[in-house]
Amino acid sequence: MTDTRFTLPVRIYYEDTDAGGVVYHANYLRFMERSRTEWLRNIGYDLDNIAQSDNLLFVVAGMNIKYHRPARLSELINVSAQLNRMGRASLDIEHQITRDGELLCEAVVSLVTVRGDNFKPYPMPTPMKQELSNWMQS
Amino acid sequence: MTDTRFTLPVRIYYEDTDAGGVVYHANYLRFMERSRTEWLRNIGYDLDNIAQSDNLLFVVAGMNIKYHRPARLSELINVSAQLNRMGRASLDIEHQITRDGELLCEAVVSLVTVRGDNFKPYPMPTPMKQELSNWMQS
Amino acid sequence: MTDTRFTLPVRIYYEDTDAGGVVYHANYLRFMERSRTEWLRNIGYDLDNIAQSDNLLFVVAGMNIKYHRPARLSELINVSAQLNRMGRASLDIEHQITRDGELLCEAVVSLVTVRGDNFKPYPMPTPMKQELSNWMQS
Amino acid sequence: MTDTRFTLPVRIYYEDTDAGGVVYHANYLRFMERSRTEWLRNIGYDLDNIAQSDNLLFVVAGMNIKYHRPARLSELINVSAQLNRMGRASLDIEHQITRDGELLCEAVVSLVTVRGDNFKPYPMPTPMKQELSNWMQS
Repeated sequence: MTDTRFTLPVRIYYEDTDAGGVVYHANYLRFMERSRTEWLRNIGYDLDNIAQSDNLLFVVAGMNIKYHRPARLSELINVSAQLNRMGRASLDIEHQITRDGELLCEAVVSLVTVRGDNFKPYPMPTPMKQELSNWMQS
Repeated sequence: MTDTRFTLPVRIYYEDTDAGGVVYHANYLRFMERSRTEWLRNIGYDLDNIAQSDNLLFVVAGMNIKYHRPARLSELINVSAQLNRMGRASLDIEHQITRDGELLCEAVVSLVTVRGDNFKPYPMPTPMKQELSNWMQS
Repeated sequence: MTDTRFTLPVRIYYEDTDAGGVVYHANYLRFMERSRTEWLRNIGYDLDNIAQSDNLLFVVAGMNIKYHRPARLSELINVSAQLNRMGRASLDIEHQITRDGELLCEAVVSLVTVRGDNFKPYPMPTPMKQELSNWMQS
Repeated sequence: MTDTRFTLPVRIYYEDTDAGGVVYHANYLRFMERSRTEWLRNIGYDLDNIAQSDNLLFVVAGMNIKYHRPARLSELINVSAQLNRMGRASLDIEHQITRDGELLCEAVVSLVTVRGDNFKPYPMPTPMKQELSNWMQS
């Protein structure tokens, strides 16, 4: 059984924090997008190429997120991405954010693929679907 | 029956958008926070005063968000906040974002109140709870 | 002598602050852009319309900014915009950010107008130039 | 002669871009702060440690920035930091942002060191000054 979870280390800078002394809650969504972008790049897909050559955008359709503990300035956190479900023009990705193995935040993000010019649902090309499905949680 | 829903108009600037030509998905969370902050200010509570004098922070514990249609540059959207549930040290707020009456985005945000110095759960002062409960959806 | 300075009030939210307890330095640039956008809207120009119908973008070419005192959570600040200089495809705008009359931050922002499709310099339409020049500091 | 310039690679994500299809102008300031933070970390100084144990904050007092060419989604850029000048409680850092050797953006950022509790100027500890001065452009 291979590990199908991708993990990206992220450093916390002042830009990420707020006056509560912790990471601003909306910024964890940025970190999650960075990790799924790097996961895709890692298996050969660049979001900008996909947008340009395939006229395909990945759009966030929904998200269920739980915040357990805050991350703080200067900390190094790990942001994982794991493909949980895949449909014709949709996929669910599960993200976990940890610091030294402790779970800080987790989310399931539902993405849909749409045409870049009209934002209508648009199925992924078959080779992309096949390649992504290799990374599905078994 | 009084209307217990608070609505804040928000203008979309370049800072809010991304290269997909629409509002970046994490930024809707900012708009929602602005609306609940203004709702609280409107009934007499300033988040900074509460943090300073009561050592009380409102922290986002979780969120379930659905994105229906994108908002775009220069548009004027309405961001509502509605208190759905209140516990000793927690509350759920429902947000809707609309443009000309069309629903763009909706979320239920779970907040907990914590001590500013240690981020442990910390009940709201009783007068605040009573005042907020007047704004609960009936 | 008419007042040619436009002023926009801006409220500070958690999203604008950082762990130093003050507004994150890059976010003053956002406030300044909001004020010049609203100044233009106020005299009849919407940046999105200009981009769509005239294929014209206003792009920041440079900025000289001085930070004097920090703004903090919950404060209401005033962000002014004042046209200082105008060329064929460029203009300089002076911004001041104040709180209760106290100067917090000031900048001169140099903008160029470019074609949206290739980012090459592109002169403003003559009527726009004439209308803007009425707002020039005398 | 040793190279005293520190360089950090930065990947461009959707969060960094705007509806003009390029990086939002204020976000280059974030990249510059990341590079000077990593430069300091690289020579043994963590901004959060400094804030906690020395009660010392580095605050941006001013900036002169020039934007030459835009960076775009998915690109990998290099963000350099170079110490140009150092005073008792101030320093100037020169940043350059390049893509494949082409200069996109450059800035001189003036920082002052202040006490974290009152934001008054506060000299850097002597060992820190000595260590930093080794990195000054000769």
